[in-house]
Amino acid sequence: MTNSELSTSFFLQMAAIIATCRVVGWIVRRWLGQPQVVGEMIAGVVLGPSLLGALSPALEAALFPADSKKLLYVGAQLGVGLYMFLIGLTFDRGEFARGAKGAASISFGSMLAPFAVAAAMTPWLIGVPGLFGAHVGQSQAALFLGAAIAITAFPMLARIIHEQGIAGTRLGTLSLSAGAIGDAGAWVVVAVVLASLAPNFGFNLGPGTMLAVKAGGGGLLFAVVMIAIAPRLLRPLETMATKHGLNETLIALALVLFLLAAWAMDAAGMHAVFGGFLLGTAMPRGRFATELREKLEPFATCFLLPMFFTYSGLNTDMSVLAHAGLIGVTLAILAAAVIAKGGACYIAARLSGESHADAMGIGALMNARGLMELIIINIGLTHGVIGPALFAMLVLMAIVTTLMAGPLFTLFCGRHGAKPTPARPLTAQS
Amino acid sequence: MTNSELSTSFFLQMAAIIATCRVVGWIVRRWLGQPQVVGEMIAGVVLGPSLLGALSPALEAALFPADSKKLLYVGAQLGVGLYMFLIGLTFDRGEFARGAKGAASISFGSMLAPFAVAAAMTPWLIGVPGLFGAHVGQSQAALFLGAAIAITAFPMLARIIHEQGIAGTRLGTLSLSAGAIGDAGAWVVVAVVLASLAPNFGFNLGPGTMLAVKAGGGGLLFAVVMIAIAPRLLRPLETMATKHGLNETLIALALVLFLLAAWAMDAAGMHAVFGGFLLGTAMPRGRFATELREKLEPFATCFLLPMFFTYSGLNTDMSVLAHAGLIGVTLAILAAAVIAKGGACYIAARLSGESHADAMGIGALMNARGLMELIIINIGLTHGVIGPALFAMLVLMAIVTTLMAGPLFTLFCGRHGAKPTPARPLTAQS
Repeated sequence: MTNSELSTSFFLQMAAIIATCRVVGWIVRRWLGQPQVVGEMIAGVVLGPSLLGALSPALEAALFPADSKKLLYVGAQLGVGLYMFLIGLTFDRGEFARGAKGAASISFGSMLAPFAVAAAMTPWLIGVPGLFGAHVGQSQAALFLGAAIAITAFPMLARIIHEQGIAGTRLGTLSLSAGAIGDAGAWVVVAVVLASLAPNFGFNLGPGTMLAVKAGGGGLLFAVVMIAIAPRLLRPLETMATKHGLNETLIALALVLFLLAAWAMDAAGMHAVFGGFLLGTAMPRGRFATELREKLEPFATCFLLPMFFTYSGLNTDMSVLAHAGLIGVTLAILAAAVIAKGGACYIAARLSGESHADAMGIGALMNARGLMELIIINIGLTHGVIGPALFAMLVLMAIVTTLMAGPLFTLFCGRHGAKPTPARPLTAQS
Repeated sequence: MTNSELSTSFFLQMAAIIATCRVVGWIVRRWLGQPQVVGEMIAGVVLGPSLLGALSPALEAALFPADSKKLLYVGAQLGVGLYMFLIGLTFDRGEFARGAKGAASISFGSMLAPFAVAAAMTPWLIGVPGLFGAHVGQSQAALFLGAAIAITAFPMLARIIHEQGIAGTRLGTLSLSAGAIGDAGAWVVVAVVLASLAPNFGFNLGPGTMLAVKAGGGGLLFAVVMIAIAPRLLRPLETMATKHGLNETLIALALVLFLLAAWAMDAAGMHAVFGGFLLGTAMPRGRFATELREKLEPFATCFLLPMFFTYSGLNTDMSVLAHAGLIGVTLAILAAAVIAKGGACYIAARLSGESHADAMGIGALMNARGLMELIIINIGLTHGVIGPALFAMLVLMAIVTTLMAGPLFTLFCGRHGAKPTPARPLTAQS
């Protein structure tokens, strides 16, 4: 395809992608009382081989010519990287530190269950062809699956808890802390798995020794800089934003820093989302962060994130699950994930003194995995940790557990719990 | 390059592009009192073969690998398309209609000179190898060159006139009307040239007859729909924006309409910028237009437009002008452009009763071509109307005439005329 043809087809493709995301989003909001993000996750699958590709391969090929996939991939990476940067901007470092002291044992306990279940299932799953990459060891497989089960749709959780007005209560604080710590833990595990899979850099000091140095060392160094040094270095940004408003120069500066952080983590063998998120947490709060989100979120969520959902959906082939054996595996993973994550959160909440109903509600919310799950498993697929079959199963798990959250929360905690998000406001979604 | 490598290099490339645009922009603002857009035009050339590529071909190749050019091209098209859409949103249909009655003869007169000069020079220029495409006839060449000379940096003109507080005066209204009508005329001419070059669609009713049907007919139909019918159809958008605020659904709807308009004009053989601009003029004014610009402009101007300046700069090789013959041609075109455009505007202003000083000031402002020139000549290069040598000359003309505007305006109209734009506010630039 010439540049000109590619750009022409890109305009039509993006119109179809954004329209599909909005239409499916409207349907799930209007008819199922579900948040927009569920609709966009489903829209991606609808546009892929699971539905559009199965119904009309010709239309699929016309809408997504081979050359355009590269474009979609890069747009998707930019989208999730920028999205995680914006999520990082809303992340409350102080709340995390306070929660880490108070809720550490409970968070740790509720993280343990997903990894224990993953470890128990892996010996069986690793024998099923096509689930994990050929070069992936049993411990790597268990760790990755554990992280995929342990992850929470943290931004969605935070929004629901604030909307319910329980953010200041013990229940709210506990859920938020446990969600944040649990997600941080899951991402660290994903980082460790990626580091352990990083290509050997030529001078091998010993089996497995140097493999992890570039990715793990680079990632660790970056994290330490972002947590310990960057917040102070970046503070002048807030002073400038307060003085002159958030002008183009400051927006451009923030974008350059984001791009460098995303590049550094990609180049180290980690992933752009780590760079974006960690930089976001290090940025000063106040007018700078608030206005930056207002300026960048519309394009990121309305244009770039749909590219991610679609790229993910183009890689999701639900038909591979139609083989009888794999449907059993799918249901087993789904059940294990719900019981391990929801159950652990229920027990943790009960131990901290919540009522049965509230604890069930918290379990239902924390069981929703949303966009976070899609990000993790797309990284896993790109790095060859998991194969297309397990990828499709985990996409299904992400959609089903996110779909379950609202109705279950209503069931346990009453009608106000299921307030459907009307048109998603311009703030962090799942 | 794998998808992963491409996306990693994209992050670094964009960091370099945005940083260069801001640094050069800062230098020209701080030291030359010039607007940011001049800096970004120069930054694009700096990153291309004219400077970075000449100094360090290795760095150039590392920063802009071949595979990444496609990405840059598509991002650039999206950027200018979206930018012209946002410009269209600020376009005052009423003012244009009133001005068209009052200032039509003057506008027409000041448009005539550039085309007359272009027609006079073309027989000479078309003999110089590498200036025009081999299949381009003399009348097409003259029309395109005339449009390139006639175009005004209309958005920049509008901003300066509003900043000077002369928007309501006869002088201000005259300049704005003449600029708007002149630019509309220049774009129509570009459209006609593109239509006359459109590939024959197979059933040729006669030489040159069907060639233009798809592009010209499609473009004309689109323009009529956008001017006559679309404003009424799109009015409910303003009602919704007033009622619910500009939520994500409305932003997504606007993006889908923009993408379809850009696609339609691209697919017809015209260019995405026509679709974006015409749709923008048809959109309802008020809260919808204002908030839409606030939400989309930051990403469009800080992220996407620099991709356009860079893609344009990568195609600009100033070294081809170093041949003695071409330097003469370059100076001749530059002088002809300045005299024809600035001179015609001066005479038009004098005829309408302005003082010598004010008329000189208006001539200097209208002579600035800015980003509009770059958009037109990039379209010409892509469609093979002009070759790399004429492209480089016209890039130089765009930069020089835009650089001249501020100092000349100060010279003629006093100190207040050269107020340097501090950090470009988040409104339409050139």
